[in-house]
Amino acid sequence: MNTQTPRITPAADPARQPRTVIVGGVAGGMSAATRLRRLDAAREIVVIERSGAVSYANCGLPYHVGGVIPDRGALELQTPSRLGARFGLDVRVNTEVVGIDPGARTATVRDLRTGETEELAYDELILSPGASPRRPAAGPDAPLATLRTLDDLDELMQRVGELAPGAPVVVIGAGHLGIEIAENLHRRGLRTTIVQREDRILPILDAEMTAPLVDHLADLGIEVRLGMTVDEIHAHGVRLSDGERLPAELVLASMGVIPETELARTAGVAVGASGAIAVDGLHRTNVPGIYAIGDAAEKTDAVDGTSRPVALAGLANRHGRHVADVIAGADATPARPALGTSIVDVAGITAASVGWNEETARAKGRALRVLHSHPLSHAGYYPGAQPISLKLIVDAADDRILGAQAVGTDGVARRIDVISVAMSAGLTASALADLELAYAPQYGSAKDPVNQLGYVARNRAAGHDATIQWHELDDAIDDGALLLDVRAEGQLAEGRIPGATWIPVEELRDRHHDFAGRPVVVHCRVGQGAHTAARLLAELGHDVRNLDGGYLTWRDGMRAKELAAVASERIEDSDAA
Amino acid sequence: MNTQTPRITPAADPARQPRTVIVGGVAGGMSAATRLRRLDAAREIVVIERSGAVSYANCGLPYHVGGVIPDRGALELQTPSRLGARFGLDVRVNTEVVGIDPGARTATVRDLRTGETEELAYDELILSPGASPRRPAAGPDAPLATLRTLDDLDELMQRVGELAPGAPVVVIGAGHLGIEIAENLHRRGLRTTIVQREDRILPILDAEMTAPLVDHLADLGIEVRLGMTVDEIHAHGVRLSDGERLPAELVLASMGVIPETELARTAGVAVGASGAIAVDGLHRTNVPGIYAIGDAAEKTDAVDGTSRPVALAGLANRHGRHVADVIAGADATPARPALGTSIVDVAGITAASVGWNEETARAKGRALRVLHSHPLSHAGYYPGAQPISLKLIVDAADDRILGAQAVGTDGVARRIDVISVAMSAGLTASALADLELAYAPQYGSAKDPVNQLGYVARNRAAGHDATIQWHELDDAIDDGALLLDVRAEGQLAEGRIPGATWIPVEELRDRHHDFAGRPVVVHCRVGQGAHTAARLLAELGHDVRNLDGGYLTWRDGMRAKELAAVASERIEDSDAA
Repeated sequence: MNTQTPRITPAADPARQPRTVIVGGVAGGMSAATRLRRLDAAREIVVIERSGAVSYANCGLPYHVGGVIPDRGALELQTPSRLGARFGLDVRVNTEVVGIDPGARTATVRDLRTGETEELAYDELILSPGASPRRPAAGPDAPLATLRTLDDLDELMQRVGELAPGAPVVVIGAGHLGIEIAENLHRRGLRTTIVQREDRILPILDAEMTAPLVDHLADLGIEVRLGMTVDEIHAHGVRLSDGERLPAELVLASMGVIPETELARTAGVAVGASGAIAVDGLHRTNVPGIYAIGDAAEKTDAVDGTSRPVALAGLANRHGRHVADVIAGADATPARPALGTSIVDVAGITAASVGWNEETARAKGRALRVLHSHPLSHAGYYPGAQPISLKLIVDAADDRILGAQAVGTDGVARRIDVISVAMSAGLTASALADLELAYAPQYGSAKDPVNQLGYVARNRAAGHDATIQWHELDDAIDDGALLLDVRAEGQLAEGRIPGATWIPVEELRDRHHDFAGRPVVVHCRVGQGAHTAARLLAELGHDVRNLDGGYLTWRDGMRAKELAAVASERIEDSDAA
Repeated sequence: MNTQTPRITPAADPARQPRTVIVGGVAGGMSAATRLRRLDAAREIVVIERSGAVSYANCGLPYHVGGVIPDRGALELQTPSRLGARFGLDVRVNTEVVGIDPGARTATVRDLRTGETEELAYDELILSPGASPRRPAAGPDAPLATLRTLDDLDELMQRVGELAPGAPVVVIGAGHLGIEIAENLHRRGLRTTIVQREDRILPILDAEMTAPLVDHLADLGIEVRLGMTVDEIHAHGVRLSDGERLPAELVLASMGVIPETELARTAGVAVGASGAIAVDGLHRTNVPGIYAIGDAAEKTDAVDGTSRPVALAGLANRHGRHVADVIAGADATPARPALGTSIVDVAGITAASVGWNEETARAKGRALRVLHSHPLSHAGYYPGAQPISLKLIVDAADDRILGAQAVGTDGVARRIDVISVAMSAGLTASALADLELAYAPQYGSAKDPVNQLGYVARNRAAGHDATIQWHELDDAIDDGALLLDVRAEGQLAEGRIPGATWIPVEELRDRHHDFAGRPVVVHCRVGQGAHTAARLLAELGHDVRNLDGGYLTWRDGMRAKELAAVASERIEDSDAA
């Protein structure tokens, strides 16, 4: 991180207005340009964009493929000329910065249509080149596509248009974009298979949260191959890492992105260990006068302050605006670190997360409290309530919220947003209990799902609720624990955990002597009734733990384990191959 | 407020377990009882409830009337005997506490069916009697009803069942409950008129936010008479304060509630100036051993620390739990003050608020910054985006958020929840800009509506955006200001503000000399384009203000003014009568 104040070289011509050159339009670059204009009517602002568009709906591209957004024009938010006229900007599309002389503060700009170049003096240069899709190795005849720009979209639409209904397609990667693309290719009537290297989809969430989504996709006819890579791509098919061949008339690579740093490196701009441009809280690189924002620049992780790229439109927009404030002298407060709140529609089911997942938190060596719950989106007695799976990851040392995840069809964004704000503001997990959230029966519960998480967190922090996680249950039983199912009889049909003894909570007072002296794990459907049972048994002198998230989390966890087992067999197969 | 620690008198029989008596079941009382049990398996817990039910869906009652919740059984969440068995509670329904001897720590309990009384010793007594509906004066033949308990519901259902389709009914009061009842009577096919004393509905919000809702109700066939009271109720009609008579086969009073304090007063428990029981942060009354929670007890206002009753289920639940923690010695942290977050469905349009409205804030003498915006619930290019009207009330002295309001069909609860959390955590209005909210195009915008409010707040705080409110516009024009409409041509058809001169923002640079020296008010549709115009004109040396919320807020404000004018004429008429 560079904390040195950049030296502003006066422009050669003292009568000239200061000039800011912005490399790359779209989210970060255009936010910077328009904000800078609002703060300074006179400054020269030049935007250099390689493609033909500077303001388009990047996040909407997959939905044009599927016909959800039928009109391509809707994706082009502003034309370069209209934006230029409205804000008095010099917007140059189909133009590229091919070199920077940071000493002279000049950029070499090439018109990609004429090939002509020009030296452009700058006072500040903002690098906002974005990131480019990671691509697998593929021969020239491979039907490989990516989807990041309008040009990509046009090419993809043409290819998709040439395919027959039911033609097989492969999507590589099951992150947010991969899922969106797969869903939309499926919507177009194509036979879609997702090939994912990891043993779960949406790895920003934990495995037990996303396992049901794999089955949901399969139910819709979108097959997911976990633990596999695409090793070869031919004209009409792919070869997977376990040797299997899949037919594929189109292969869409959504394997993440690589920050565009080539231009930055040639100018002596330092790149961090993460591979993105290193910046300080004011978006300054190590080179005086050069700033960087957007997907090409590192973000500071809000949980532990480490640096990593976080490719989110919201952050690009925000930092674009902020770098303009910094340059105009309107704001010298460092940018807030990034929580990385994100959300995706998985063919009708919403999955959202904020902060770290459990896997990351464990890898960082934190002692954790992990909470699973399965509330309804609103009061159960009001029609239309939908289940949500919620997960909260809490630092056991200080009750700090490290991350949260939610999956469901209704009310998911709201709960993740609430937790995101709580994290931003430094509220503890226990403090979630006290939030006053809007309640009427069609909107929520008097104790909102987030309040409920807070209550559980408070109980755990106070030692009122010893728990066990789904993946710890087998060991506990092996160690001699009795697994006690305290659900009501009507709930048993949903499924049972092998080896569990059923005693409804109402009968525990009378029957608890039967298992005196034996450690007990209690479980119910979601963890709430079992909490009451566990409290009772603890008061009665038993060594008792509550199965966190109840039967539902255990079931999802077991499914995740099955999926991971299949995936790991495949990985072994391919290692052997 | 009483801050003295209550003296705990040991029970007369030293072998006896401590006993907690709870007066009133439902939200507050049952939350206290069940939580106390989870913390203490041995304590005697007695719940005394006047009605026949201790756990029912109070907030769902109106929706059974309208058939949205067809099954009455769905509203009875737990039977007294099941709750008793599950939690080991002594739940006595159809029973009343008729006297308390605070010195001896005994309560006199009467069985309402047998008339028998019993003295019950207590260690702690929790008053959770709730509040009773305010009722208008009415003769014995008046078809007057209220809706607060299951018994009320049963009576109302019978009466409604006897009415012919299209029969006229009157709802008195247009708060949350009045609106819900009116909507559901209308849904039953009854000709429904709401009579409201104030000059607007849902007075917890400000007039320009709710004026469109009055028209929405009228469009559905629910008439709203503002600025009127019901002065007489006869068997088949009512007389309004302006002398008009309306036929009415049923009159539903939803005029707010009166805290139940009679029992408390007889025991020497102090009642605050607000008319509710005075308590400290640990729910302690002035009488040792007696606590009070729920609608009968005062809450501390989160904005300025004053005491007032806030009848919200969420707070009753929370304080029920908290008082149990206090009694069990598990928590000695005072309850958080109340923001009063609330939400209501107005026949398909959601209205929600948190904290103070502008009227309250002005009455309290605060210098304010008021922000109106009209964002879409999600990215405009993704189908189904719905407009939201948002309002933020900010203390000009310190950028503190005093309150917020939102009206729309989608995403309303989420935005109010986010702002509620921000208020709870003490974030400033400007800090809303930095919140990381879940974004994908079907869920929100890269700059979420709440972020956008934060940006506007930040601009205002920095003096980058001088604004004028809709109700200040006439004066500004009278004082010689030029009103400049900078919308795009296609937006003009929506309506125009009389006297405005139209110059699209793109032409301002060329034409601004035409109005040199004259103060300018600029407006666009929602305030955003006009901000760009205002920044430009300010940079070019003009004295310029932006019409907050643009044409849309002005239009809603004008409608509110019209409605208030009609209401005030009626009030004058009735004063003259």
